[in-house]
Amino acid sequence: MTLQRFQARVHVSLRSSVLDPAGEATRSAASRLGVEGITKLRIGKAVDLELEATNEAEARKQLELLSDRLLANPVIEDWSLELHRDSSTSA
Amino acid sequence: MTLQRFQARVHVSLRSSVLDPAGEATRSAASRLGVEGITKLRIGKAVDLELEATNEAEARKQLELLSDRLLANPVIEDWSLELHRDSSTSA
Repeated sequence: MTLQRFQARVHVSLRSSVLDPAGEATRSAASRLGVEGITKLRIGKAVDLELEATNEAEARKQLELLSDRLLANPVIEDWSLELHRDSSTSA
Repeated sequence: MTLQRFQARVHVSLRSSVLDPAGEATRSAASRLGVEGITKLRIGKAVDLELEATNEAEARKQLELLSDRLLANPVIEDWSLELHRDSSTSA
């Protein structure tokens, strides 16, 4: 069975109801740096992956499992997935 | 002077020459979870911002300063910027 190669990025961000003290501290520091006008600043994670799977549906299923169970804490975080086939190389 | 409202996301990722032990640990954990076929996993930051500026060039300039000086450590990290005008609300 031929494997296809995929590239993916999973964005993990704090739910809007959850405080982000690191983001708030960064926003204060931005103001001290002279950068005004920032009304919101929240810090999340971006996980860049490369993986091999038999097809896109299988790759997506694996990544959804990974995001739900490992990359994000569903109590306080949401995640979203970008997935595309890597056409530059063949597995 | 009328201010425009913008949304932005700054991606901060480790330079490819820099080791990512947290990413490696996550990749091992993925394997134990039964998710096979991951050939690369690197963890970066995604900073979501909203800001007000007189125009897009000014907003971009502010965000580039912020990214260079505050959000990323240029010794070990690269950053990239997505910026678009927020048409849903007016400042």
